Amino acid sequence: MRKLRLFSPGPTMVPPEVTAAMAGPFDHHRTAAHRAIFREVTENLQYVFQTSASVCIVTGSGTAAMESAIVGVGAPNSKALVLCGGKFGERWAKVCKSYRINHVAHQMEWGTAPSGELVAELLAKDSAIDTVIVTHCETSTAAAADLQAIAEVTRRRDCLLVVDGITSVGALPVRMDEWGVDVVVTSSQKALMTPPGLGFVAVSERAWKRIDSFASPALYLCLKAYRQGFPTQDHPYTPAITLLRGLQVALRMMREEGMENIWRRTATLARATRAAVEAMGLRVFARNPSDSLTAVLLPEGFDEPTFRRRLREEYGILVAGGQDQLKGRIFRINHMGYVDATDTLGAIAAFEMLLSDMGHSFPLGAGVAAAMQAAKES
Amino acid sequence: MRKLRLFSPGPTMVPPEVTAAMAGPFDHHRTAAHRAIFREVTENLQYVFQTSASVCIVTGSGTAAMESAIVGVGAPNSKALVLCGGKFGERWAKVCKSYRINHVAHQMEWGTAPSGELVAELLAKDSAIDTVIVTHCETSTAAAADLQAIAEVTRRRDCLLVVDGITSVGALPVRMDEWGVDVVVTSSQKALMTPPGLGFVAVSERAWKRIDSFASPALYLCLKAYRQGFPTQDHPYTPAITLLRGLQVALRMMREEGMENIWRRTATLARATRAAVEAMGLRVFARNPSDSLTAVLLPEGFDEPTFRRRLREEYGILVAGGQDQLKGRIFRINHMGYVDATDTLGAIAAFEMLLSDMGHSFPLGAGVAAAMQAAKES
Repeated sequence: MRKLRLFSPGPTMVPPEVTAAMAGPFDHHRTAAHRAIFREVTENLQYVFQTSASVCIVTGSGTAAMESAIVGVGAPNSKALVLCGGKFGERWAKVCKSYRINHVAHQMEWGTAPSGELVAELLAKDSAIDTVIVTHCETSTAAAADLQAIAEVTRRRDCLLVVDGITSVGALPVRMDEWGVDVVVTSSQKALMTPPGLGFVAVSERAWKRIDSFASPALYLCLKAYRQGFPTQDHPYTPAITLLRGLQVALRMMREEGMENIWRRTATLARATRAAVEAMGLRVFARNPSDSLTAVLLPEGFDEPTFRRRLREEYGILVAGGQDQLKGRIFRINHMGYVDATDTLGAIAAFEMLLSDMGHSFPLGAGVAAAMQAAKES
Repeated sequence: MRKLRLFSPGPTMVPPEVTAAMAGPFDHHRTAAHRAIFREVTENLQYVFQTSASVCIVTGSGTAAMESAIVGVGAPNSKALVLCGGKFGERWAKVCKSYRINHVAHQMEWGTAPSGELVAELLAKDSAIDTVIVTHCETSTAAAADLQAIAEVTRRRDCLLVVDGITSVGALPVRMDEWGVDVVVTSSQKALMTPPGLGFVAVSERAWKRIDSFASPALYLCLKAYRQGFPTQDHPYTPAITLLRGLQVALRMMREEGMENIWRRTATLARATRAAVEAMGLRVFARNPSDSLTAVLLPEGFDEPTFRRRLREEYGILVAGGQDQLKGRIFRINHMGYVDATDTLGAIAAFEMLLSDMGHSFPLGAGVAAAMQAAKES
């Protein structure tokens, strides 16, 4: 028997209801039947983003969606501050570089995340900055920024705030309208419980003004073409219809559970996992740990490749390793989407079994016990 | 009972084997298991493109894939000739415009397609042109270009030839290596029998030289990042895993049938349909009709919206209408991918029933009879 559980922070596990919907017959995208799906999906995305702004649906990865946002607000006379605390922050600086968008990349130690104070300080130093690009949760380090505090700062300064919410929207609290965030991006394969292939870009009226102020240097990733989809419900290019069918079902499930309940469930799993990590004598990597995933620092010299291989082969659990400078030093476990306490406690037990077998010394059962205690107290 | 048949030229019908594969469990994309799928899919795409060149797999629509090709070869000192005989040719000129790629757009009458002579003539007039962008089959008009003759001309001149093969690859004969075509693009939802969401770009060594000669103005659609996938089998960004699972099965089916047999089947369906159109007293719109789809010109003043609505509601057949200047004047029926003679004869019978009911006068049964005769003679 082979049973594989995706504990990777994207792609995450997909509910069988979603899978079934994707396997059903589908209609052409320029029909009333499809438009009804598009309308429902768009409205439920607004609920997930907690916004009344238009949400653009782009066929592509999260990177594609984030690139459309950055290029959209990167007007010739604008200047962006890009906060880089990991692989993805660095990628957004690369997007600016590719399109020759005037920007300054602020490098931060991996595992830390920007605060409102930091952003205020950086803005005070450079009055030309009119755009802030921040990664809410940096997937590569599992650190989360204080988005609400940063939004307060950017609102005061009248800066556009563009948020990579790929590993946050639908998992961490994000209240786009209430907090005054201008652009929020996410993708299908994280908290939205749908396979990869769709990106989503929520765009405020303030951001549209910027986007409309200049000719886009790109065609496929020009958001203007996607705005027509709201509220007229039409796609500019052939969309990934089967993924939209799956998304429709996933969003219904999210709406039924309710955002606050989802945020609470996600936070509980993260708290339980962090408690387990400490109890197993390991450390959480991030100094500002996110609730959407946890990065676990392995003991110096620990055989990480064997750990992940055996976790998969013997326990049916796939976790993500470290990227770039964190390769071999951490592993990452997901708390977003279709994952619950039973899944997570099972995974922690598997970590315990294997860590113990590989010579890491701690009281067997301590991890699961600590996790249960933390979950109970949540 | 509701039974809907997609006779639209994309999305086309999807085999149940493909649907089933997309509904199965899937693995993370950075694993040996996924790499094996990626390798198999890439090799079978090479077979479909009839090339030994690397084939890049981009998550996105056909437009995204075509944009990556145009931007890739659009070096700062290059000049492109874009042949525009319909909506899609015009879109490729728009891509050039967005990225400020030096180009000249040659407008042609809709329904006609470029010949080798025309391209030779246009190249002779402008020695600065080093890139030709041609739409093999223009989906909006159902006209097909003589790709082999055009490739002969561009090879002589040492021009790069970039081909929109979205409505051709896997349906019309395309022999990329033998004909000396430099870049060929297609997407999943046409002859490749897979739902929309994936684009494919086959890139010759000559084209890679151009692509490598300058910094890309885009990130997500920069082909350089996708080349690493060949032969190391890794995606630069999270790919649409479920669609790749479906594609794997679709390509196995294509390989089993064999490209020549597929081309023959497609041509037979087209020939039968054209014969039926004439026999029903209608006309094929394109002066250079493609075998991948047929555009049927309706009688002056015919109520096209009602025709398409009733075709769907009463006969379960979805055909595409006309786009832009052809809106209301034509309907388009697909011959690509998972469609056979029985499907097509059934559709023709439905056209007959409805045309007759809507007052178009012709001998009932003439269309199907002519189609059968044409199919028999093929």
